[in-house]
Amino acid sequence: MVRELFNVRSVAVIGASENPKKLGYTIVKNLVHYRFRGAIYPISLHAQTILGIKTYTHVEEVPRDIDLAVIAVPAAVVPEVLRQCVNKVIPLVIVISAGFKETGEQGACREQQLLEIIAGSNTRLLGPNCLGLIDAASSLNASFAANFPAYEPISFISQSGALGAAFLDWISANHLGIHYFISLGNKADLDENYFLERLYSDKLIACYLEDIKDGQQFLQIGQKYNCNRPVIVLKAGRSASAAEAIRSHTGVLAGGYPLTKAALQQYGYIVVETIGDLFHTLKAFAWQPLPTFNRVAIVSNAGGAAVVATDTLIEKGLELADLSLETQNVLRSASIHNPIDVAGDALSERYLQVMEAVLQEEDVSSLLVILTPQVMTEIEKTAAYIGGMKKYGKPILASFIGGTLVDKGLKLLDERKVPAYHFPETALNVLAAMTWYASYRQRTAYNLPTPALKSPYYEEHHAAVNELYQQARALGLNTLPQVSVDELTRRYHIAAPESYVCKQVDQAVLCVRASVGYPCVLKIVAPTLLHKSDIGAVITNIKDEVALREAYYQLEALIRERKIADAAICVQKYIEPGRQLIVGATRDANFGTILLFGSGGIYTELLGDVVRRVAPLERAEMLTMISETRIAPILEGMRGQKAVDIQRIIDVIKAVEYLMQDYDFIQSIDINPLLVSADSICAVDIKIFLNSAKNHTTDNMIEH
Amino acid sequence: MVRELFNVRSVAVIGASENPKKLGYTIVKNLVHYRFRGAIYPISLHAQTILGIKTYTHVEEVPRDIDLAVIAVPAAVVPEVLRQCVNKVIPLVIVISAGFKETGEQGACREQQLLEIIAGSNTRLLGPNCLGLIDAASSLNASFAANFPAYEPISFISQSGALGAAFLDWISANHLGIHYFISLGNKADLDENYFLERLYSDKLIACYLEDIKDGQQFLQIGQKYNCNRPVIVLKAGRSASAAEAIRSHTGVLAGGYPLTKAALQQYGYIVVETIGDLFHTLKAFAWQPLPTFNRVAIVSNAGGAAVVATDTLIEKGLELADLSLETQNVLRSASIHNPIDVAGDALSERYLQVMEAVLQEEDVSSLLVILTPQVMTEIEKTAAYIGGMKKYGKPILASFIGGTLVDKGLKLLDERKVPAYHFPETALNVLAAMTWYASYRQRTAYNLPTPALKSPYYEEHHAAVNELYQQARALGLNTLPQVSVDELTRRYHIAAPESYVCKQVDQAVLCVRASVGYPCVLKIVAPTLLHKSDIGAVITNIKDEVALREAYYQLEALIRERKIADAAICVQKYIEPGRQLIVGATRDANFGTILLFGSGGIYTELLGDVVRRVAPLERAEMLTMISETRIAPILEGMRGQKAVDIQRIIDVIKAVEYLMQDYDFIQSIDINPLLVSADSICAVDIKIFLNSAKNHTTDNMIEH
Repeated sequence: MVRELFNVRSVAVIGASENPKKLGYTIVKNLVHYRFRGAIYPISLHAQTILGIKTYTHVEEVPRDIDLAVIAVPAAVVPEVLRQCVNKVIPLVIVISAGFKETGEQGACREQQLLEIIAGSNTRLLGPNCLGLIDAASSLNASFAANFPAYEPISFISQSGALGAAFLDWISANHLGIHYFISLGNKADLDENYFLERLYSDKLIACYLEDIKDGQQFLQIGQKYNCNRPVIVLKAGRSASAAEAIRSHTGVLAGGYPLTKAALQQYGYIVVETIGDLFHTLKAFAWQPLPTFNRVAIVSNAGGAAVVATDTLIEKGLELADLSLETQNVLRSASIHNPIDVAGDALSERYLQVMEAVLQEEDVSSLLVILTPQVMTEIEKTAAYIGGMKKYGKPILASFIGGTLVDKGLKLLDERKVPAYHFPETALNVLAAMTWYASYRQRTAYNLPTPALKSPYYEEHHAAVNELYQQARALGLNTLPQVSVDELTRRYHIAAPESYVCKQVDQAVLCVRASVGYPCVLKIVAPTLLHKSDIGAVITNIKDEVALREAYYQLEALIRERKIADAAICVQKYIEPGRQLIVGATRDANFGTILLFGSGGIYTELLGDVVRRVAPLERAEMLTMISETRIAPILEGMRGQKAVDIQRIIDVIKAVEYLMQDYDFIQSIDINPLLVSADSICAVDIKIFLNSAKNHTTDNMIEH
Repeated sequence: MVRELFNVRSVAVIGASENPKKLGYTIVKNLVHYRFRGAIYPISLHAQTILGIKTYTHVEEVPRDIDLAVIAVPAAVVPEVLRQCVNKVIPLVIVISAGFKETGEQGACREQQLLEIIAGSNTRLLGPNCLGLIDAASSLNASFAANFPAYEPISFISQSGALGAAFLDWISANHLGIHYFISLGNKADLDENYFLERLYSDKLIACYLEDIKDGQQFLQIGQKYNCNRPVIVLKAGRSASAAEAIRSHTGVLAGGYPLTKAALQQYGYIVVETIGDLFHTLKAFAWQPLPTFNRVAIVSNAGGAAVVATDTLIEKGLELADLSLETQNVLRSASIHNPIDVAGDALSERYLQVMEAVLQEEDVSSLLVILTPQVMTEIEKTAAYIGGMKKYGKPILASFIGGTLVDKGLKLLDERKVPAYHFPETALNVLAAMTWYASYRQRTAYNLPTPALKSPYYEEHHAAVNELYQQARALGLNTLPQVSVDELTRRYHIAAPESYVCKQVDQAVLCVRASVGYPCVLKIVAPTLLHKSDIGAVITNIKDEVALREAYYQLEALIRERKIADAAICVQKYIEPGRQLIVGATRDANFGTILLFGSGGIYTELLGDVVRRVAPLERAEMLTMISETRIAPILEGMRGQKAVDIQRIIDVIKAVEYLMQDYDFIQSIDINPLLVSADSICAVDIKIFLNSAKNHTTDNMIEH
């Protein structure tokens, strides 16, 4: 357990000002206006008093201890005043000032300087280039955001100060409160992990992040707390252009988004992708219990709206709940099927009757109430009744569609803490996120495993395997040669076709005669050759010696013609075509070892049917991973095909995981295709990239 | 040209009432309160006057002509009063009353009765089971919606009355107006087509539809008007469950959504999928010019929000505009790249300066302005400046993120007719729809062709082809036998492998020896056999006579074992594997002949990579169709593959179109796979379903 976040009883504002146009004034004003109960020490070289409070010229002049200093002076002066804070042993310093990493190289140097100043001291730093910090529980507004939110045990950690300002405005207008608002700024010292680890007693956290500073730690914190405390994350930078915008914004290069999303979800973070979703989802998590499963009832006085809502509901992976005959009897006046159309002339009493019947149904896990303003509609009374439904302990969301007429109802629902939105699709988006998180929590069987140090194969094989690596290293290679790959996969029990590297055509002929047999396959292997079939470097289904010799000469010519460096020709048993899969692994700089599974072969890119997970994984979770691909139904025997043995696929993924775990020298492994049929499995093409090789990111994994 | 919609100078309300709780009162009240300038005749058996207006007991009693009758009496009485309306020669009757098709069989009969009553008369009927009609230009509110919208040449046609009520409330709250609001109800007589054809002078139309009554006419109207007048359509029933909800709602079974969407977009309808998108998109189309292309500038005082907006922008197929060096100079104070971060302390003047510079850029086709409420932010002044930017003639949308603080700004933007939303993703969704429509209009080269009566092949071949059909018919078949298919495809120049149906094994051996050659393929052909490869009914790559005989016996055994009716065994030349495509066509009951192209073979369902179009199509549009598939880059030579000759694929699609056009007896054609490589194209498996066969919907097309 780490100690509670901060205990601030005194604040110094360095760069405080009398001029209402300066941030140094706004910060002091915010402290005063929010009625901070501790001491305020404005530090100013010019003013005697600010807002009636005595000033000091340096923090060191202040006669008492200071728990927090807020710095709002020009960037060039920041190092000097920060040094004074360190001398004064101030535990937390917020640097509001901009002019650091976000401005380029010179700024980055200055930021580095700040880190050097606090190194080894008891002072921690938030920012620079941030909006500050609000702690509503202590009535502490140490920021230049002009908001004084009510208290509620919800925190918002934001890498964008401006989005924080919008959030605070939105929070207040929506009858919500917060505990901490933390503007991370450039994250020179304190980052999202620092706060996520310490805010474990809040009931809900929202994050806006442009990068994740330490991905592995971020996931570990998720593993520790996310089952008890939902964390909603909006991770910017899904697109390449957005990544550029981030670079020019905070000077940090964003990682690949699909990987980040998969990793975060694996560890229970609720990932949203728009600002609206972040805000809307937070409201529902703050006010409503979680659904126990994914079956929803819709009650609406507008049939059309219910139909469109159902479309969205199905798309989001939710389902319409079934109603018992008993309830259908109660509903006779309305339509008896879900979505339930209470009809355009429904008074509030009819809504009430139907909601009560529906919420008592076992199959109903959550309720969406839709209302449109018709002549008879009792908007406010209906809103009040909806508020009363909370007693059933199931999540209830509402959509009141319209303008001025329904706005009163929406406000009333807000006051009763029923998340209500203009449009049903918004409510369903939110409900889908709640349902996803609830199901994550329920998968208690799936405890994320702690990484074992070495695999069961390590003891017996590591000497030999390390020898293979040393040989490759001695040759200056950045991929393992084919013969070594073959040995490695044999030692780790990955089913691969018999395969021999041949120096000349007669050797190939002998190999086939003695062992491989016809039909066979000839292919070029070379460190630089990634897309073999694209250039005709693989000749399959060779039926006799004449064809073999011809194929061999053809590949030799190809090697000469294309000047393929370090090329060899390899003969292999021909494997009957089956389902083509891809299995791979790579070391991601931020999240560690990533496992990958999906549709392989020439369709890899076309299908984009690939699922990623952070290692290590239990076999059960590997099964889930496989089931998330689009090829899964075919593997399971769809369309009259024979099912393949999924456990044998998992064996391969597990072996790849073991290799990554046992040998740091492996940067990535790429098996594509892994051919599987009802009674065979065969890793036809395996590439192992060594760690010295630069730029072997996950992108390599979908090449073949 | 059809005449203007209605010219209503007098209205009778049948079932008028003094009781404020009755619809018959509300309707009279709405007419009076909206200040209808014509005569109002309440028809009531009980009251003498209603709201001070003299009543009559029957319409026939009214001494003057009546232009419009609104019926709000119990369903059982509707036929009787409708008959009186017909006698009185009232041109338009609105039946508000429910209790017709939407309630089941008995109601459907009653609805049929209404149609019989008006048959051959001059009376047209709107409804039954509807909310009525509003014509804001004539201050006519002949509905029970309690809204009196301002006039604007925008109409809303809705198959849900309740959604109409919500729409009207939203319209007023958003400073918009309307021309017609039309509640279609059960569409017994007048439907969407009737109104779409007549509302050609409005500048914008929105539709909510649960079914499209006459798809081909709907498309023709689109072809005629959609380039001049945008029509935004929300078509409910995307999901199966939603289709059920519709059935219970208006008693009409919805058609397949992907087909509907493709057909509507082909003819220029702007398809949206949520209620929010319908409302938000309408606002932007009403107020803003269209973008000339897809390049957008974003100006924001919140870097984070700009980054998230860029993510959405890219996902929607929009692009960030490039800025000239000149403009970058102007922007020096802000960040110089798009998205442009004017920084958190931006005053309205900085917004103004940047917006002006950006809007003068040639590469900027539209502008999104994002604002968050920070300490220095001048929300209202910035909103006013944004309003002033309309002079540049480019579409401008805004997103003011926050709560109470920004709401004033949003209201001001509404007043200045700048579509403004809380969240940038909403604005970008709308901008994507505008960009799509603008590009549709610009494709002037793509004039939808008028169907020629017969293809160029018809004259020479129709006698022989019809003979093939007669033979199949005589045998009672519902697919064309293989030999006939072979002849048909030869006559229409579809490249297919040489293929012979054999009665016994020796015949197969002779065929191969004399003509086909080794390797060859043997397969079972039978009318009931759709998924040949799934049951092992295709044996490929047969290399010699021994293998051929063995394969033949194997298929014979399979036919016996599976009791495949009317089966024959067919021998074919073996075609080297290439890209597997699917080409098909079917007659849809609603939209006519549909052409289909996509990825074929065993991956057809897995990929779901299929594009549909309504025939006839110009070759240029077939090319567009092909380019919309995910396999297109591979066909064009991605990844070192040789490009295939796309024109030869178009030849095949064209031939399929010709066949559908020339022979009504064909219900659908299914070529899967069509094998293509750099220098060959071959329709390996062709099935032709005959029209007598029931239930051959488009679903068959993705089977193989």
